[in-house]
Amino acid sequence: MKCRICRAKAAVNLRQHNMALCKEHFLDWIPAQAERFIKKYKMFSHSERILVAVSGGKDSLSLWDILNRLGYQADGLYICLGIDEGIHYSAESQRLAEKFASGRGLKLHVVDIQKEYKEAIPALTIQSRHGRKADCSICGLVKRHEMNRIARDFGYDVLATGHNLDDEAAVLFGNTLHWAGEYLLRQGPLLLGKPGMARKAKPLCRFYEREMLAYALLRGIEYIYDECPLSIGSTSIYYKEMLNHLETDRPGAKLSFYLSFLEARRAGLFIEHSQIQAELHPCPNCGQPTSSSDVCSFCRLVQGQVS
Amino acid sequence: MKCRICRAKAAVNLRQHNMALCKEHFLDWIPAQAERFIKKYKMFSHSERILVAVSGGKDSLSLWDILNRLGYQADGLYICLGIDEGIHYSAESQRLAEKFASGRGLKLHVVDIQKEYKEAIPALTIQSRHGRKADCSICGLVKRHEMNRIARDFGYDVLATGHNLDDEAAVLFGNTLHWAGEYLLRQGPLLLGKPGMARKAKPLCRFYEREMLAYALLRGIEYIYDECPLSIGSTSIYYKEMLNHLETDRPGAKLSFYLSFLEARRAGLFIEHSQIQAELHPCPNCGQPTSSSDVCSFCRLVQGQVS
Repeated sequence: MKCRICRAKAAVNLRQHNMALCKEHFLDWIPAQAERFIKKYKMFSHSERILVAVSGGKDSLSLWDILNRLGYQADGLYICLGIDEGIHYSAESQRLAEKFASGRGLKLHVVDIQKEYKEAIPALTIQSRHGRKADCSICGLVKRHEMNRIARDFGYDVLATGHNLDDEAAVLFGNTLHWAGEYLLRQGPLLLGKPGMARKAKPLCRFYEREMLAYALLRGIEYIYDECPLSIGSTSIYYKEMLNHLETDRPGAKLSFYLSFLEARRAGLFIEHSQIQAELHPCPNCGQPTSSSDVCSFCRLVQGQVS
Repeated sequence: MKCRICRAKAAVNLRQHNMALCKEHFLDWIPAQAERFIKKYKMFSHSERILVAVSGGKDSLSLWDILNRLGYQADGLYICLGIDEGIHYSAESQRLAEKFASGRGLKLHVVDIQKEYKEAIPALTIQSRHGRKADCSICGLVKRHEMNRIARDFGYDVLATGHNLDDEAAVLFGNTLHWAGEYLLRQGPLLLGKPGMARKAKPLCRFYEREMLAYALLRGIEYIYDECPLSIGSTSIYYKEMLNHLETDRPGAKLSFYLSFLEARRAGLFIEHSQIQAELHPCPNCGQPTSSSDVCSFCRLVQGQVS
């Protein structure tokens, strides 16, 4: 196979685009596409301050790389979840995030959940009312809260996360299998902000996971290879596997599933999100918006720990 | 395992209902459940005349059996599609449908596509603009048209088809993967009639395929075992296989997918079907409603054949 642009030997075959590219043109193509998505979905402008949620994995570090190459003002946020599981998962992730930042002279905020809230994710998860060890929903709750908090406290205009197409399609698939109305209505490349809640953008949402893997490898980004050890056996990984089978049999099915959903919603297939969204008010403890009549879920979780 | 009702040896284990039943109580349970669904979805009453689309397969013959046991006025319609493929598929299906009817003194209408329209399904499909051999959409178009025609010409109030949960979930799955708005908005246990178009009901839509298989076997209904030989490799069979994998890993997932869809739509997740439905008018040739500005798709197909 030859690069569609320069006819040199191709490094990457983008099957669903029916296009192969050499290393150089692939490394140009990804940021150019990302810029196109940022503009298309009106995610943010060059005058805004962006906080990138950085896990140490290939997606978020690549996102940070891309945003900086595109000239955006993007700082990083690393949230240390305190997950070890015998492979020093969090410690290694943090080392790689810090190495990435220092090597490029970028600013990285670091939040340590255990230092802030007395317990790390494994203990918070086990002791939460969910009671299961590998509960990604508790970890997601904590990460969302902390991302919001840092974005608000440091005056960032927007939070950017490294969710790729495989992530987004799996979430959509799960929400569709259960027809989870509110989640279906708000999932997308951009979630508008509200008082106390930062705008959220996903510039990589249209890239396949394997495209981001190729980008990180070819760009020489050092990232943590392991998946989170607590996520093994999770529902989201199960849905990803189902969609991978579908994609193998019907190339492009994953992208088509996600994009046709966005298009159907844009065209008015669903009611407006505002028609079913619960009323929000500030949590009396942390100030972040919640639909609960008392303190928010995060504060309930953390208070349960420290009381 | 023992029957939940009489504690005798169970014949069927209904895993998703966490219930086992003996032969006798299973054969009572299925019609009782069907009656519940007929009433719940307001499908039809005992005073209405029902036309059951009978293919000779386990689902439609079981449906006809059930409706008659429940005291409904249900006649049958067999549409001979002229599919042979070396296994005499249509001839054998027709023989079994006629045997079922005559053995029970039931009225069966028979329509022969080749006699009516000069060509049978294989030729109509090959020569259609779709141009592929195994095109279930052409066959579906023909069957819908003929069911409507007979229902209208003989004054039936409602058409009943034997679609089971596996059929309905697979159609929903395909429509969801493509977010096919109009199809999503109208799929359901009941499709209301309109001028020139009979009301359509699917009393078996909440039964798993394996439940209908067990019913046909235990009731001693003689049906055609083969799947339609032209459907091998079809998309609908592919989606059924995906959903079967999901069901194996997560018992009840198929039913939950279908029911939560119906519930989300009832609760107002989507816009009203009437808001996007194309305007219909009678086909100048056959009189059935069409959104085309000229003759309907069926008449275009058939005229293409005879011209």
